[in-house]
Amino acid sequence: MTVQNISSFAAGQWIAPGAGARNIASAITGDVIATAGNDALDVQAMLDYARNVGGPNLRKLTFHDRARMLKALAMHLREHRQAMYDLSFDTGATQSDHMIDIDGGIGTMLVFASKGRKEMPDSHVYLDGEIEQLSRNGTFLGQHICTPLQGVAIHINAFNFPVWGMLEKLAPTLLAGVPAIVKPATNSCYVTELCVKLMIDSGILPAGAVQLVSGGLGDMLDHLTCQDAVAFTGSADTALKLRSNPLILQNNTRFTSEADSLNASLLGPDAIPGTPEFDLFVKEVSREMTTKAGQKCTAIRRIIAPQNSVEALIEALSARLSKTVIGDPRLETTRMGALVSGGQKRDVLEKAALIGTEAERVFGDPDNFTVDGADAEKGAFVPPMLFHCADPDNAQRVHDTEAFGPVSTVMGYRDVDHAIALANKGQGSLVTSCITHDPTVAREVAIGAGAFHGRIYFNNRDSMKESTGHGSPLPHMVHGGPGRAGGGEELGGIRGVKHYMQRTAIQGSPDILSAIGDKWVPGAAEITEEAHPFTRKFGELSIGETLHTAPRTVTMDDIEHFANFTGDTFYAHMDEEAARRNPFFPGRVAHGYLLLSFAAGMFVEPNEGPVLANTGLDGLRFMKPVSAGDSIKVRLTVKKKTKRNDEYGEVRWHVTLTNQDDELVAEYELLTMNAY
Amino acid sequence: MTVQNISSFAAGQWIAPGAGARNIASAITGDVIATAGNDALDVQAMLDYARNVGGPNLRKLTFHDRARMLKALAMHLREHRQAMYDLSFDTGATQSDHMIDIDGGIGTMLVFASKGRKEMPDSHVYLDGEIEQLSRNGTFLGQHICTPLQGVAIHINAFNFPVWGMLEKLAPTLLAGVPAIVKPATNSCYVTELCVKLMIDSGILPAGAVQLVSGGLGDMLDHLTCQDAVAFTGSADTALKLRSNPLILQNNTRFTSEADSLNASLLGPDAIPGTPEFDLFVKEVSREMTTKAGQKCTAIRRIIAPQNSVEALIEALSARLSKTVIGDPRLETTRMGALVSGGQKRDVLEKAALIGTEAERVFGDPDNFTVDGADAEKGAFVPPMLFHCADPDNAQRVHDTEAFGPVSTVMGYRDVDHAIALANKGQGSLVTSCITHDPTVAREVAIGAGAFHGRIYFNNRDSMKESTGHGSPLPHMVHGGPGRAGGGEELGGIRGVKHYMQRTAIQGSPDILSAIGDKWVPGAAEITEEAHPFTRKFGELSIGETLHTAPRTVTMDDIEHFANFTGDTFYAHMDEEAARRNPFFPGRVAHGYLLLSFAAGMFVEPNEGPVLANTGLDGLRFMKPVSAGDSIKVRLTVKKKTKRNDEYGEVRWHVTLTNQDDELVAEYELLTMNAY
Repeated sequence: MTVQNISSFAAGQWIAPGAGARNIASAITGDVIATAGNDALDVQAMLDYARNVGGPNLRKLTFHDRARMLKALAMHLREHRQAMYDLSFDTGATQSDHMIDIDGGIGTMLVFASKGRKEMPDSHVYLDGEIEQLSRNGTFLGQHICTPLQGVAIHINAFNFPVWGMLEKLAPTLLAGVPAIVKPATNSCYVTELCVKLMIDSGILPAGAVQLVSGGLGDMLDHLTCQDAVAFTGSADTALKLRSNPLILQNNTRFTSEADSLNASLLGPDAIPGTPEFDLFVKEVSREMTTKAGQKCTAIRRIIAPQNSVEALIEALSARLSKTVIGDPRLETTRMGALVSGGQKRDVLEKAALIGTEAERVFGDPDNFTVDGADAEKGAFVPPMLFHCADPDNAQRVHDTEAFGPVSTVMGYRDVDHAIALANKGQGSLVTSCITHDPTVAREVAIGAGAFHGRIYFNNRDSMKESTGHGSPLPHMVHGGPGRAGGGEELGGIRGVKHYMQRTAIQGSPDILSAIGDKWVPGAAEITEEAHPFTRKFGELSIGETLHTAPRTVTMDDIEHFANFTGDTFYAHMDEEAARRNPFFPGRVAHGYLLLSFAAGMFVEPNEGPVLANTGLDGLRFMKPVSAGDSIKVRLTVKKKTKRNDEYGEVRWHVTLTNQDDELVAEYELLTMNAY
Repeated sequence: MTVQNISSFAAGQWIAPGAGARNIASAITGDVIATAGNDALDVQAMLDYARNVGGPNLRKLTFHDRARMLKALAMHLREHRQAMYDLSFDTGATQSDHMIDIDGGIGTMLVFASKGRKEMPDSHVYLDGEIEQLSRNGTFLGQHICTPLQGVAIHINAFNFPVWGMLEKLAPTLLAGVPAIVKPATNSCYVTELCVKLMIDSGILPAGAVQLVSGGLGDMLDHLTCQDAVAFTGSADTALKLRSNPLILQNNTRFTSEADSLNASLLGPDAIPGTPEFDLFVKEVSREMTTKAGQKCTAIRRIIAPQNSVEALIEALSARLSKTVIGDPRLETTRMGALVSGGQKRDVLEKAALIGTEAERVFGDPDNFTVDGADAEKGAFVPPMLFHCADPDNAQRVHDTEAFGPVSTVMGYRDVDHAIALANKGQGSLVTSCITHDPTVAREVAIGAGAFHGRIYFNNRDSMKESTGHGSPLPHMVHGGPGRAGGGEELGGIRGVKHYMQRTAIQGSPDILSAIGDKWVPGAAEITEEAHPFTRKFGELSIGETLHTAPRTVTMDDIEHFANFTGDTFYAHMDEEAARRNPFFPGRVAHGYLLLSFAAGMFVEPNEGPVLANTGLDGLRFMKPVSAGDSIKVRLTVKKKTKRNDEYGEVRWHVTLTNQDDELVAEYELLTMNAY
């Protein structure tokens, strides 16, 4: 049997293992299959390469450029996923586990690619929130922006998801415009190495964007500055050690961690045996216990059920768990593979024993279980183990001890407040789930347990067909949790990208803010062209290009005509006395929709041209009523342009309607699709 | 002369100084004026009181309740501000300095009171961002929420702003629903004590919401959990010490700090002598140097100017600084008072000497200056001191050394990139300003320096009349900075409130999300009442209450009529051939505004009733074109209700238009004002 050399990718070079390399054993056979690590790795050169080559290369691109890059990477990895599957079995994972790791990682990248194009601008500055009015006349305004950190992100990942663990951190980092140095856990780094090779060989990434350390990081963390960021996933002990690095503390280097978490699942008081929710609960819990052999930071460790359902629940869970076929993950019949290593197996059994001092084991015997197609002694196999804790108020170990395998503890609760208190005894976790069909229970749980949990997953008969599972962090939703769970946050859509950017409060004049944000700010200079802006193509229009229309007088005939035509005979338009009684109107007033419609008639250029469609309208506010005899005029300004494809792009127009006294009548943003 | 006893307010009791109390001297005379501190303070009882009494009391209130509470507190403090002014002179501050501290603190509280009501809901759960579509059919969705931490916030403040320093942290904390223990710097804690007394005596705060430690904190920080938060303002050394607390590190207790910062101000290359920008720069720099005798974390420490303007700048600054009248701050003629203490004076002179090893002192002599109305030997007076550093690329001390007094260093730059590099040499600061009239320069500075600065303040002839000053953190904008500046963030409107809440990803069915968020989510249950919803008062309407209208067919006559009436004869409505050539339309289609107007006519209840006005419309998207012969129908659902006053409230309606095939034609949110 050949032992694979697992390389690092440093400063543009693949570096084979050298002095200090460590052997890696198969989870199934215990045989050495690979070796990784090299004490001579030049970590300073890697940092310099990321900072001086990777960062500048990435920052040249816009958010959309980087989003397209992520999409191309994801498509490339998807094409080559079989090779990654093949390699992954030796980590003890089954084909279903691979799908979570490999397809899940690729899917995460695709979501960031999509959100990057939908929710971020096609430029270099991300605008965080709206303009803040800091002055009466609007000559001095505020706008928060985010720009990429100018250092490097160090990603230190756990062994359980060698692909997803890397890609879920890499996607937001690259989208932000920050280069990364990835350090996977050595136990499964051979899968990560293949994934990195695929990405590098694709030629899609600019030089310096991604580097890889297979093996130890050396003293890399002693060389970080305020522009770097460390994202760690692993044990709380290691997280504490890294977080306590004096240089990181002194330089306020960003450090986020995702560590131990005693995740709970609550069975709602309404979800008694016989309900669809009870059955759903049994299914979700047993799946979470056995997927990836329980080696998931989000796996359910504590099962919190109404006291009088505990017995039925243990019975139902035991029945379901007894069907778990354990064995060589390459066998199609296998439902649960091995833990990643013998060391991990020893750790899980020790922790289970610790839990056993406060809870009774009611299912699963590590000394007596069947393994299909592999040697139970040589591989890192354990059976699912279910415990029951009779007095969870006085058993802190079951709330503190994370056995990182297929191990969970059932405990009973008296009422919803008690269930919440038990869930919170974990002192901060990644996820708690609650299976209930009662929205009131859900609300109580969200308010009572929210502060202790990074995610709360509700499920019931209405959502179970489309629900994504207690244990699945989604790229759209934040992943992380307070306290014991590490105190960090990742993913959550653009939130996760912002963790690799610096938020800066910008103050200045409208012209200054327009230039920084690539977006016209009211008060900034207007650009006037001879041609009507609707006759100009997407590429010809400038930010700030403005059309002022001639005024149009609104008559009582117009109001009555519009009311009768549309059927909108609301009293404020039709009944002088009733309108006068209304606190907002001086008497009968024009319909808001009449004003909008007239405005369109005033600014439109009717002939066929580059404007393809009016696709929407945002933030319309009516500021002042218009009475018969008033005249209105329109100002239409190009606020923002977003290219959508080679044929057309979206133009966001700022529109104001003013009356004969130049008072603001209405304000809104109009969206059109314009030919390129 | 009497020495004032400065008390702590602990677990509902005022505790006078005791063993371990420290004397506090007047900044002007050096005489002991007060004493504070008590080693017997029971810090565990304070934490328990905050957690068990203050937190639950605050969390019972809605965000709007707490916003109203902040407003009442601010109005009460404003009424009693003269007493705070009177006490503040002994800190060395002038009346203008008091305005920044006391009026500035009250103003900050008022902004949070206003933003709390405008930007947060009148309920217990803050919705962070929009619904995330996690499933194809929409039965399983995501929503991020924020709920208050269930612990206590420890605020450790600096001596320079005894009132603002407390209130800027207190306002977002209380608005979040979190109780606070405030620990002001002992040097000026007598002013803070008076402010806390005023707040407590007002009876506006619920029990346990605010406690005060005058003197030392004891071992309070060794008792924190993942539900607590520490916000520190002060020196980098102390910040590092506190941040390294093993319990804080182990429990991932939130810790934010705002520490040393070598803030810079850049003179744009366009702002040559003779421009309004050059004069503005001289004015801002000299004001920032002397306000509060330079004891501001945001004061300008580094003045970065085009190489060929350095000489003129030093001349202009020296001329202006020479007019700074130093003396007893109680004198109306005094422009700059004293540093807070003799210790602080020694520190500033030491740091100035350190800077003097790399830069030449070109203005101000600490051994030779005039002090009006006070004894220069006994009081903590220093003159403004200006340095010039000829080789700023090779002088790291001027970028590292914060002399916390009226001390600043001028340095020249070659081009904008060089100016940015120099600004970034501070390794993270709270604020950099740039005086330029060139938007291109502003953009370069924002992109190049953003990652190193929490705030970038631009000013020029257009904004100078309304600008708020380089040194003023505004409640709307974030305050804090990376690296040396502490790596923290405060204020920034609701962002600052969120720092005291936990963000939790919620996943579940539309009904579950509606119940948690007090906001109807598409797909959730619809409530049907017999009466038309427009006939029901604000208080009678339920979230989810829905009206379905009868269909209306849109005819070609309607389209032509509308076009001719409004003037909107756009080709997509009027020219069959041109419309067909358009990539979005099958041929002539109805105007979007026609559909909106018809929809209003279909759902309106015309008679006088509780609906007072249509005030606006959000997020309108046209999803599918409507051709002549299609028929449309409307669904109108109460999405959210926000009480505005005792007479009326805002109702946000979710509106969908569907065609004869139940396909979505348009979707939007409608705002109405409804009588209570």
